[in-house]
Amino acid sequence: MDNKGFRRSSLASFHSNTSDEDMVEITEATLDFTMTDDVPPIDRDMAAGFVSYNGNGLNGGAKVMDFLDVPGVGTYEDFNTIDWVREKSRDRDRHREILSRSKESTWALLHSVSDAFSGWMLMLLIGLTAGSLAGLIDISSHWMTDLKEGICLPWFWFNHEQCCWQSNNVTFEDRNNCPEWRSWSQLVLGRSEGAFPYILNYFMYVMWALLFSLLAVLLVRNFAPYACGSGIPEIKTILSGFIIRGYLGKWTLIIKTMTLVLAVSSGLSLGKEGPLIHVACCCGNILCHLFTKYRKNEAKRREVLSAAAAAGVSVAFGAPIGGVLFSLEEVSYYFPLKTLWRSFFAALVAAFTLRSINPFGNSRLVLFYVEFHAPWHLLELIPFILLGIFGGLWGAFFIRANIAWCHRRKTTKLGRYPVAEVLMVTAITAILAFPNDYTRMSSSEMISELFNDCGLLDSSKLCDYVNDYNNTKGGNLPDRAAGNGVYTAMWQLSLALIFKAVITIFTFGIKVPSGLFIPSMAVGAIMGRLLGVAMEQLSFYHHDWLIFRGWCNQGADCITPGLYAMVGAAACLGGATRMTVSLVVIMFELTGGLEYIVPLMAAAMTSKWVADALGRGSIYDAHIHLNGYPFLEAKEEFSHKTLAMDVMRPRRNDPILTAITQDSMTVEDIEAIISETTYSGFPIVVSRESQRLMGFVLRRDLIISIESARKKQEGIVSTSRIYFTEHTPTQPTTAPPSLKLRAIMDLSPFTITDQTPMEIVVDIFRKLGLRQCLVTHNGRLLGIITKKDVLKHIAQMANQDPDSILFN
Amino acid sequence: MDNKGFRRSSLASFHSNTSDEDMVEITEATLDFTMTDDVPPIDRDMAAGFVSYNGNGLNGGAKVMDFLDVPGVGTYEDFNTIDWVREKSRDRDRHREILSRSKESTWALLHSVSDAFSGWMLMLLIGLTAGSLAGLIDISSHWMTDLKEGICLPWFWFNHEQCCWQSNNVTFEDRNNCPEWRSWSQLVLGRSEGAFPYILNYFMYVMWALLFSLLAVLLVRNFAPYACGSGIPEIKTILSGFIIRGYLGKWTLIIKTMTLVLAVSSGLSLGKEGPLIHVACCCGNILCHLFTKYRKNEAKRREVLSAAAAAGVSVAFGAPIGGVLFSLEEVSYYFPLKTLWRSFFAALVAAFTLRSINPFGNSRLVLFYVEFHAPWHLLELIPFILLGIFGGLWGAFFIRANIAWCHRRKTTKLGRYPVAEVLMVTAITAILAFPNDYTRMSSSEMISELFNDCGLLDSSKLCDYVNDYNNTKGGNLPDRAAGNGVYTAMWQLSLALIFKAVITIFTFGIKVPSGLFIPSMAVGAIMGRLLGVAMEQLSFYHHDWLIFRGWCNQGADCITPGLYAMVGAAACLGGATRMTVSLVVIMFELTGGLEYIVPLMAAAMTSKWVADALGRGSIYDAHIHLNGYPFLEAKEEFSHKTLAMDVMRPRRNDPILTAITQDSMTVEDIEAIISETTYSGFPIVVSRESQRLMGFVLRRDLIISIESARKKQEGIVSTSRIYFTEHTPTQPTTAPPSLKLRAIMDLSPFTITDQTPMEIVVDIFRKLGLRQCLVTHNGRLLGIITKKDVLKHIAQMANQDPDSILFN
Repeated sequence: MDNKGFRRSSLASFHSNTSDEDMVEITEATLDFTMTDDVPPIDRDMAAGFVSYNGNGLNGGAKVMDFLDVPGVGTYEDFNTIDWVREKSRDRDRHREILSRSKESTWALLHSVSDAFSGWMLMLLIGLTAGSLAGLIDISSHWMTDLKEGICLPWFWFNHEQCCWQSNNVTFEDRNNCPEWRSWSQLVLGRSEGAFPYILNYFMYVMWALLFSLLAVLLVRNFAPYACGSGIPEIKTILSGFIIRGYLGKWTLIIKTMTLVLAVSSGLSLGKEGPLIHVACCCGNILCHLFTKYRKNEAKRREVLSAAAAAGVSVAFGAPIGGVLFSLEEVSYYFPLKTLWRSFFAALVAAFTLRSINPFGNSRLVLFYVEFHAPWHLLELIPFILLGIFGGLWGAFFIRANIAWCHRRKTTKLGRYPVAEVLMVTAITAILAFPNDYTRMSSSEMISELFNDCGLLDSSKLCDYVNDYNNTKGGNLPDRAAGNGVYTAMWQLSLALIFKAVITIFTFGIKVPSGLFIPSMAVGAIMGRLLGVAMEQLSFYHHDWLIFRGWCNQGADCITPGLYAMVGAAACLGGATRMTVSLVVIMFELTGGLEYIVPLMAAAMTSKWVADALGRGSIYDAHIHLNGYPFLEAKEEFSHKTLAMDVMRPRRNDPILTAITQDSMTVEDIEAIISETTYSGFPIVVSRESQRLMGFVLRRDLIISIESARKKQEGIVSTSRIYFTEHTPTQPTTAPPSLKLRAIMDLSPFTITDQTPMEIVVDIFRKLGLRQCLVTHNGRLLGIITKKDVLKHIAQMANQDPDSILFN
Repeated sequence: MDNKGFRRSSLASFHSNTSDEDMVEITEATLDFTMTDDVPPIDRDMAAGFVSYNGNGLNGGAKVMDFLDVPGVGTYEDFNTIDWVREKSRDRDRHREILSRSKESTWALLHSVSDAFSGWMLMLLIGLTAGSLAGLIDISSHWMTDLKEGICLPWFWFNHEQCCWQSNNVTFEDRNNCPEWRSWSQLVLGRSEGAFPYILNYFMYVMWALLFSLLAVLLVRNFAPYACGSGIPEIKTILSGFIIRGYLGKWTLIIKTMTLVLAVSSGLSLGKEGPLIHVACCCGNILCHLFTKYRKNEAKRREVLSAAAAAGVSVAFGAPIGGVLFSLEEVSYYFPLKTLWRSFFAALVAAFTLRSINPFGNSRLVLFYVEFHAPWHLLELIPFILLGIFGGLWGAFFIRANIAWCHRRKTTKLGRYPVAEVLMVTAITAILAFPNDYTRMSSSEMISELFNDCGLLDSSKLCDYVNDYNNTKGGNLPDRAAGNGVYTAMWQLSLALIFKAVITIFTFGIKVPSGLFIPSMAVGAIMGRLLGVAMEQLSFYHHDWLIFRGWCNQGADCITPGLYAMVGAAACLGGATRMTVSLVVIMFELTGGLEYIVPLMAAAMTSKWVADALGRGSIYDAHIHLNGYPFLEAKEEFSHKTLAMDVMRPRRNDPILTAITQDSMTVEDIEAIISETTYSGFPIVVSRESQRLMGFVLRRDLIISIESARKKQEGIVSTSRIYFTEHTPTQPTTAPPSLKLRAIMDLSPFTITDQTPMEIVVDIFRKLGLRQCLVTHNGRLLGIITKKDVLKHIAQMANQDPDSILFN
């Protein structure tokens, strides 16, 4: 064998320029691997055999691309798992080829440069589209949310806020009450005071909500069923290497964007953050089609999707760094450092695009801009940790309750009437929400108000304090006694807390786009503000207590209720999603001060510990389990002491593993094996007796090759021998010509021994992204473990039904 | 075989409660694996065989710990690579055992809880120590730097700044000139004006510098040779799984902390940021000894070191998030998400500890606090990108020149006189630095001044503008004409630029602790400020030019030279270290505004592209190569088309691989193999003829076992047969008793086929952290590939000398 350092081992081209006429080759349309002449004959077969693994070779660039265009070759079927090793090998081959060709001509050099920059180009495009779509969604949902309450008469395309900006008839004090903005009762009855106008407004509010949600659910049901939900569980599964065709397609994108606006505007207890990630991933996936590098390679495409997810979070919160960390921590499976840098770029572009659209009208990037004036005291960590405990408890409770309800929906008649369910939930939400100021406004508006640190000029109920102007020094507001407004707000907020906490359980999972970030932050923010105001009043009236002495004197500004709301929001969000670093960083980007990282971190940590103690896995993991997606969790360690032999097929009492021998089978034999079994691949052994493993062949490749050989190669009949060996033995001339299939064999299948602990096997599957792995004992082939087997085994060990895993 | 799901396959305990008297077991002190009685006899051997891989089993917890305490077992020799798979398996076993025992007693439960929280505890301690040490270093180096120029007479322990704070005799305008602070000439001659006092000050400056550097180099040479340099290349190598004993030990810590202060104070062109990371890692390593979980497991310890590195950067710059990302991007090798969260915690604790020490006296966390007032314009991206190009060029040039110089030091007589070299460099630095204001001050002070946005009250030369008070509106300073001071500063800065750029090449690598962050930032900041002032004056005098029209009218504040300095600093740092995300995030944390991320990102991106085009790899990678550390780069893809068979040993013409047979060898035979070869492990095959792989045994285990058996087991002589099989065949009674060594065999060695492409092999080694991998062909053992072989092959492919790799 030729063994020089630079072996050109996959010199495959598409021209049948071989001279070995006695070998029957698979031809053209399917898998035409033949050799170039500069390779010694003895090396050729090996080279060709290697090709099936490496996709293509150094020569015949454009033609190799054509080969990948052959339908069925190099692609995967729906609901299948990709082979990361193979995809990455293919990408490296592609890269090598472009590089080697780049020296040939200027055009090829340009091609190579444009190829190198195509990733950055793609990131730029993703950032631009994700930012624009987020701006569009923000603007339309603001307008439609306000439409439920009234309309801007002279300029109907303005929302309430913009309407009053345009108006000349308002003072700063009363900036949300301009004559141009008419509530429905004002428009119809000409007045807004009294019982009847109230009922009319109430009615219009509920009707608009029902209309929006009906539209949303009908659009989802009829045009893009994948557009419902938050999409994060599915995106996690897709990024881990699963294929769900259409989940990130253009219809999903269009319908999800539209219905997201409708669902948010209908006032349901849901957020737009999760779905925005889905929308950004759809953009990423669609834009991948512009670049061959990403269109044709499932592994590379997943890198792009990871970056798109970062861009999605970036525009959802205006937090680019948090977005990248969210993608890294929560969503992605394979996240090389190159992707980190590109994700960051995409996230930044998206954030700046959104800012130039300026949907909030305040040139701020962030959804909830907060500025606190007072530092926090070490003793305040106690209430912050209490908020963390609350967040953890709520998170764990929410996950259980929501999963139980979703399970019920899946298994009972309920699931058959999605439209009715949505309408019912919307009706209940709207009817209960309208009478309470804090539930009538949109959740994000409410959170914004709860985060707010009351200034002297704030006119909201929450800031209705008894002002003592003698004590105010230099802009710093001291703690003050609460006025009536604050007490009213407390009652309303308590009711809103119960309402939000309960209705969200029934809302998350209905057949409209629905995110969980905003509702869980709302619950936490209410709880936090309640606790914050309580602490503030306590310290105001009892500033001589031991715990307040020293840091909370009379006239000092020592408690910031807005900070409590923020910490509470982080705690609840952390409890439900189990985010850690990304959560803290997102919140840090909202406030922009390192100052408040410690309270946020204390709450997020406590919340995660408490929630983890009550049940492992985030709401997304729980939904992945519920839906049986084949997701190999990278965070949790497999901790049981089983061995590969306990998991492999065939099991002890099963018949022996179906294998193909290298030289003793005929076309007939193999066709029989294909029709009798449903395995997606077969190991090739030296002989039945020795059971020594030679390679692995995929079912699909085998079928395509034999079919094509029968059609295009003369003399191939059912009794033709099939050879996977390097050399074909000379045969009697009476025998039919033999079929040489070494080309489609994978010569480097992954093998482990039967004694390998499953923890290591799980690790290998995870880190290398395998689809299957062969099991040997003392060099003899014994069995096979597929990703499905691993997932089933993990489910079994966790006392779950192993057959619940959805897998083709 | 018993094949139930929950196989307890490594039921090993230390009590020889076996009843199989006919088997000779390895005893106590070495490797006593025997079975508990609840395992069927047929399963025992397998279970025991498995033990060597998994470290310990479910039973006999404390005793298994004892087993790991046996000298030589489970540890590695110096300059060896760890086996990540084995270490992680051992940790999982440990965890499993503690978990299973936690149900037995309250004490064990407490132990299990404390074990779970020991990681967090360790992080807290690391944060506290790293923060305190950083504060100590900051304070002492400030004081000693000022000592070179003078002393505070009434309070000698104060530095210049603190001295004048204490003084009552200063105005705000002249706040750095107080009578209490005496320069050396004032102290000795009583006056500071004139030529002679200048010469005296000059002389004292040089003398102090020489004294400090002499002390530093002597301490390093005599007490801790590992304390020199930045330490980052070595830490990268250690984190990738290499063992360098003492590199992170207590002596290194003590000496590095002391000499770092001396080196920084001596005024050499070096920074304390890199060495601070080393110091933090030393703390981490030493603190690991407090917790069994980390003391005994090399993989777990490396997780801690990753977090410690993050804490180091966090205190170096006051940038916790940037620190974590730096550790993730630049330093770490194996960085699971759990580590991310913990690193963040450690980084935060460290940052807050440092802040409470408050070494800069401004309650700021960050090293260079900057606040800019004017936004930047899109057209300014052109100069920013120019700065990026400059940074990339400088980085690439610096790496080449520094490596060439270090290579010269290694290979010529120069390397034999480290003390003389350090004194020489210090003398040149001090002599050239004193006359120029900008080189006389410490680099970080200079950078601080360059980043500064000139206010009306700033009295430095750089802010000597011609003020036009008519044009000043509301605090916003318009662009102004430069005064004489600015022109002088420009000249001095130009000279400083050349000086810093040249002297740093010779400084980085001398035998004192030396970081590169500050010098490269200094070069970039000077260049940036020069360009910034040039742009500013251009726009002031030519505001009617097309490019300035519209955004840079007369009287507008359109160019911020400080921002240019910052962008330049980022570009040069990026060029030398090839940091990307972490660089931008660190800079973002310095300014605290998302506003300026885009200029920074543009410069960092350009700089990296330009530098990468001129030579791959950061300065740290270059030093790793230069020193031949066995570091398997995770970022670069292996892109050659070689196969496993080209890399494996034995090569084509070499004698066959040394293997041990399962049942046909005697003690004598194996001792002969051990003495004739130097391999650190041997594969075990079924028989010489079949060459079917059974397992793998480590040389050290084999030696220890045979020695111990000869001592402790009766009848073991040179002719005793050694069996690795499950069952020992019955032998004639005349034969000596046989030795059963299945217990020390690894039954699940990693295997690949000879046709596996090297790109995949490299991937496997990287991702799974293997030490070796066996190569088979059709189920027959063919050869072995070690990490060393892989590294040599990569070096060979890159046309480097493969024998330069340092490996035991």
